[in-house]
Amino acid sequence: MASTILSRRDLDFLLYEWLDAESLIQRQRFSEHSRETFDAVLDLCEQLATDKFANHNKKSDQNEPHFDGERVHIIPEVRQALDAFTEAGLITAGHDAELGGMQLPCLLEKAGFAWFNGANVATSAYPMLSIGNANTLLKCGSAQQIEQFVKPLLAGRFFGTMCLSEPQAGSSLSDILSQAIAEPDGSYRLRGNKMWISGGEHDLSQNIIHLVLAKVPDVNGKLIPGVKGISLFIVPKFLVNDDGSLGERNDVVLAGLNHKMGYRGTTNCLLNFGEGKYQPHGKPGAVAYLVGKLHHGLAAMFNMMNEARIGVGLGAVMLGYTGYLQSLDYARNRPQGRPPANKDPSQPQVPLVEHTDVRRMLLAQKTYVEGGLALILYCARLVDEEKTADSTEARTSATLLLDILTPIAKSWPSQWCLEANNLAIQIHGGYGYTREYNVEQLYRDNRLNPIHEGTHGIQAIDLLGRKVVMNSGAAMTLLSEKILHTLVRAEQCQLTEHSGALGKRWKRLLHTTEILHGANDLNVTLANASVYLEAFGHLVMSWIWLEQAIAAHAAERGDQSFYAGKQQACDWFFRWELPRVDAQLDLLDSLDKTTLAMQDDWF
Amino acid sequence: MASTILSRRDLDFLLYEWLDAESLIQRQRFSEHSRETFDAVLDLCEQLATDKFANHNKKSDQNEPHFDGERVHIIPEVRQALDAFTEAGLITAGHDAELGGMQLPCLLEKAGFAWFNGANVATSAYPMLSIGNANTLLKCGSAQQIEQFVKPLLAGRFFGTMCLSEPQAGSSLSDILSQAIAEPDGSYRLRGNKMWISGGEHDLSQNIIHLVLAKVPDVNGKLIPGVKGISLFIVPKFLVNDDGSLGERNDVVLAGLNHKMGYRGTTNCLLNFGEGKYQPHGKPGAVAYLVGKLHHGLAAMFNMMNEARIGVGLGAVMLGYTGYLQSLDYARNRPQGRPPANKDPSQPQVPLVEHTDVRRMLLAQKTYVEGGLALILYCARLVDEEKTADSTEARTSATLLLDILTPIAKSWPSQWCLEANNLAIQIHGGYGYTREYNVEQLYRDNRLNPIHEGTHGIQAIDLLGRKVVMNSGAAMTLLSEKILHTLVRAEQCQLTEHSGALGKRWKRLLHTTEILHGANDLNVTLANASVYLEAFGHLVMSWIWLEQAIAAHAAERGDQSFYAGKQQACDWFFRWELPRVDAQLDLLDSLDKTTLAMQDDWF
Repeated sequence: MASTILSRRDLDFLLYEWLDAESLIQRQRFSEHSRETFDAVLDLCEQLATDKFANHNKKSDQNEPHFDGERVHIIPEVRQALDAFTEAGLITAGHDAELGGMQLPCLLEKAGFAWFNGANVATSAYPMLSIGNANTLLKCGSAQQIEQFVKPLLAGRFFGTMCLSEPQAGSSLSDILSQAIAEPDGSYRLRGNKMWISGGEHDLSQNIIHLVLAKVPDVNGKLIPGVKGISLFIVPKFLVNDDGSLGERNDVVLAGLNHKMGYRGTTNCLLNFGEGKYQPHGKPGAVAYLVGKLHHGLAAMFNMMNEARIGVGLGAVMLGYTGYLQSLDYARNRPQGRPPANKDPSQPQVPLVEHTDVRRMLLAQKTYVEGGLALILYCARLVDEEKTADSTEARTSATLLLDILTPIAKSWPSQWCLEANNLAIQIHGGYGYTREYNVEQLYRDNRLNPIHEGTHGIQAIDLLGRKVVMNSGAAMTLLSEKILHTLVRAEQCQLTEHSGALGKRWKRLLHTTEILHGANDLNVTLANASVYLEAFGHLVMSWIWLEQAIAAHAAERGDQSFYAGKQQACDWFFRWELPRVDAQLDLLDSLDKTTLAMQDDWF
Repeated sequence: MASTILSRRDLDFLLYEWLDAESLIQRQRFSEHSRETFDAVLDLCEQLATDKFANHNKKSDQNEPHFDGERVHIIPEVRQALDAFTEAGLITAGHDAELGGMQLPCLLEKAGFAWFNGANVATSAYPMLSIGNANTLLKCGSAQQIEQFVKPLLAGRFFGTMCLSEPQAGSSLSDILSQAIAEPDGSYRLRGNKMWISGGEHDLSQNIIHLVLAKVPDVNGKLIPGVKGISLFIVPKFLVNDDGSLGERNDVVLAGLNHKMGYRGTTNCLLNFGEGKYQPHGKPGAVAYLVGKLHHGLAAMFNMMNEARIGVGLGAVMLGYTGYLQSLDYARNRPQGRPPANKDPSQPQVPLVEHTDVRRMLLAQKTYVEGGLALILYCARLVDEEKTADSTEARTSATLLLDILTPIAKSWPSQWCLEANNLAIQIHGGYGYTREYNVEQLYRDNRLNPIHEGTHGIQAIDLLGRKVVMNSGAAMTLLSEKILHTLVRAEQCQLTEHSGALGKRWKRLLHTTEILHGANDLNVTLANASVYLEAFGHLVMSWIWLEQAIAAHAAERGDQSFYAGKQQACDWFFRWELPRVDAQLDLLDSLDKTTLAMQDDWF
């Protein structure tokens, strides 16, 4: 039976027929690889995800981690899954050979990781965070920090977290109050409370490496207001001795677990730093090590946050993807009712998939999840370009494109693949609303994604307030060129209807962007930023679908049904989804102030 | 502190400033009432809902009913709440005085019930079902059935259910297999399995009266295929003796509880009828009593289903409404970040409500939930017209309008007030995703509403396939007249912008309806029915918002903030929501076949 986690046929299409993964083998960094090694990794991921991750997805949800006041209890299957993941070498799938890594392209790394996200998003969050943590330290940490912390992270002996939010400062990092005070030996002592820390406490690894944002007071003991005063620190749960062995318990203490609607298998914690439960080296305060330069912490942490935003997008896509496949399976096997034009009750009922409205819900899901996966893999491909493209220009272009696409890669799947889960429930009818099936859990799990790593509102401000105008609009210009290039190719494939529809609207978006930035009042420019984000997202996804249709058109025949499905999905997206954008652009062009003018006491 | 269940100010506005509830007092049936008695009922409902229903909403969710194989255990607060509801006389709020009722207008009955739905939708489902059950029997049952079953239902001693679906036949009632065989004494013996039975088993009442759809075999023992062979039966859990005392246990047995994502406080059951656990009067089969005429069961049950559809709409609205008020409260009290044009970090953070994007999410919720409540109360007002209007013509008109609005009243709040809950979570950020707050539960509870009492797809077919064309389009014509009348009044209030926007689109909808019914292929006509349902819903809601704006305009001044809020919400709906309809009508007009043409093996 075909997997209900992910379609390997679709994955192969995206990797080999669209994104030309095989061409990466020409690059020095990936020269040890081949189509065979790529496929072997994907096979391995499918198998491990199916056997070790999917097996406890529901059990994790029904038996969420609990804290007895001393330690956190997690069902044993989580540890078993993570051990298997580590043993298979997947933590270091993308890392340098000299670090013990496979030197796999990011594209293949993400394609492989998709299986784990789809099988069990909560368990797969632990390695996702550890890998992001290690990558940040590899980029910004000292040689000693890499030796002491990164190597055990990559070996799966330590796990990592990112600690940004505080109870009084969720999205507003300017307002964090955690403080770090320098010690004579160059280390720091850190105090503060950090909220929403995924993987913040557990016994799944020997140690936990927290990357913590905090402020260092000036000589007068004052904190620099705003983000300019933020620095990044390593705070390990256990200190690490020079020989790599574990030392004393550091003063990082679990204050409580958050009990979530979904995503329950991942511990999510309120952590207290330096409140005095432990006194490492006989002194108060959590021992902390500065990463990179003082007051440059936010930029350093953004390495991890950007990676995490793509990671959130992939998680959202895969929750949608497995829900799609599960509802497709259900729709094919559940007989129910008859078509409107032939309701003869003496005839047997037809499978749900025969009903046009059910096909609508399946097609919608297909476009959201396959489109979402395509976007995320496109971004992963850009990471490879950024690292290994031949020319500086190509590398710089990749960075720019990645910058502008990141808020879309995070927000679009979070919105639309959640909607896919909504439709997956609807196809199941009453059964979908029960815990006997999986789709209700997927819907609950996926509802986290529009919130963490920056809410929709934050992504919208990032896109409209920053990304489209940075470097004099360089990223926007580049994205426009890419899209226009696609439109030309689409016309050569008889996709003229779609290329016209997208071309016209993309041009409108450029104009809308000018109108918004011409408002001469930042509050007006950004007032309806979330609408801009959504319109932009749908336009980008139309482009991604057109790209897929071109690739399907170019494919050698022999798998007609698959390519017809891609073409039909593209048609559906262009006819059913893209036109939504018109009303959004109209609203934006009018600089509508209905929301801005609303008064608190009118509610 | 203002209630976070429902705004009494808004309710008063809808009842007295818009729907002219006081004029009902002129009618014979309501002549014992006054504004004072109406208000007293609303006061009572607010207090009871707050004290006895809201108090265990979360507890019910966290301690769902469980079945030990013998009986179902439910937390005691549910019984206490229902006893208080009964003691207050609220079961019979709308019933005849001679049945012990208050003879309250349906408008006031629904307005009062809104408080219970908002406070605890799961507990309030029990009386909702009982009242619907009693009303169906009052309409279709015999005098003896009314005496034996309805009176105890109205006294709160018995509770009721509706048993339609079966495991192999969810939405497809044609395919039910439950059978009833006539006995010499005029009773029947019924056998079969019924699925998704809310309130199907519990100890909250002395007896449970199941209204069951089943088929009576013909002389050859064959079932008539399709809905034409369906009859309606009463199957009590305990037989009722002639003196009204409880008799033998009937053979209705709980096979299992469904474990749902939300709405957990309401038991939802698979029931086995006549499988042999009990043998009432020493014979196999569940004792059943025919209601009304043989083979006319579906029409009889539709009395209850139509009432239930409005009830589902109200439940969906009120889950949205309380979520809106809770997120408004949170937004006013949670400081976070600063406005884009003034981000000085040395200044204190501002409350969330100061952010334009948060105001967007609040305004959206306000329009969905206040608009939804207005629609439901409008429908309730039509029920009063249907029963008590002076002329036959007025009564017939009310029935027609109610017929065409019912699928909207059920589906629109189920979709958009669920979206309101989605936004309420988003405003709470990470906190909204935790079970420490209420909004995640509201979201889970509300997700049931697009499924039960006919899915969205079923409502869409009901609207487009039946309601807009019945009686040569009489309902549609009447609704058009109502809307055009509103447009004229809107122009007199300087609401020309909005009346033009709605008038233009309503005209388009009429044309779209013609195009769809001109397709000469029912599969094509109905292929995109769900899009039609959504567009129709948004147009109706625009009309409802325009009506509210007119009422706010006409109001005596003195509560400026409230009326400004109504006006702003109307503006928002017209500028942000109504334009969505254009793309939907374009799609419908094109008779788009993308979905219809999709093949199973292309997925």
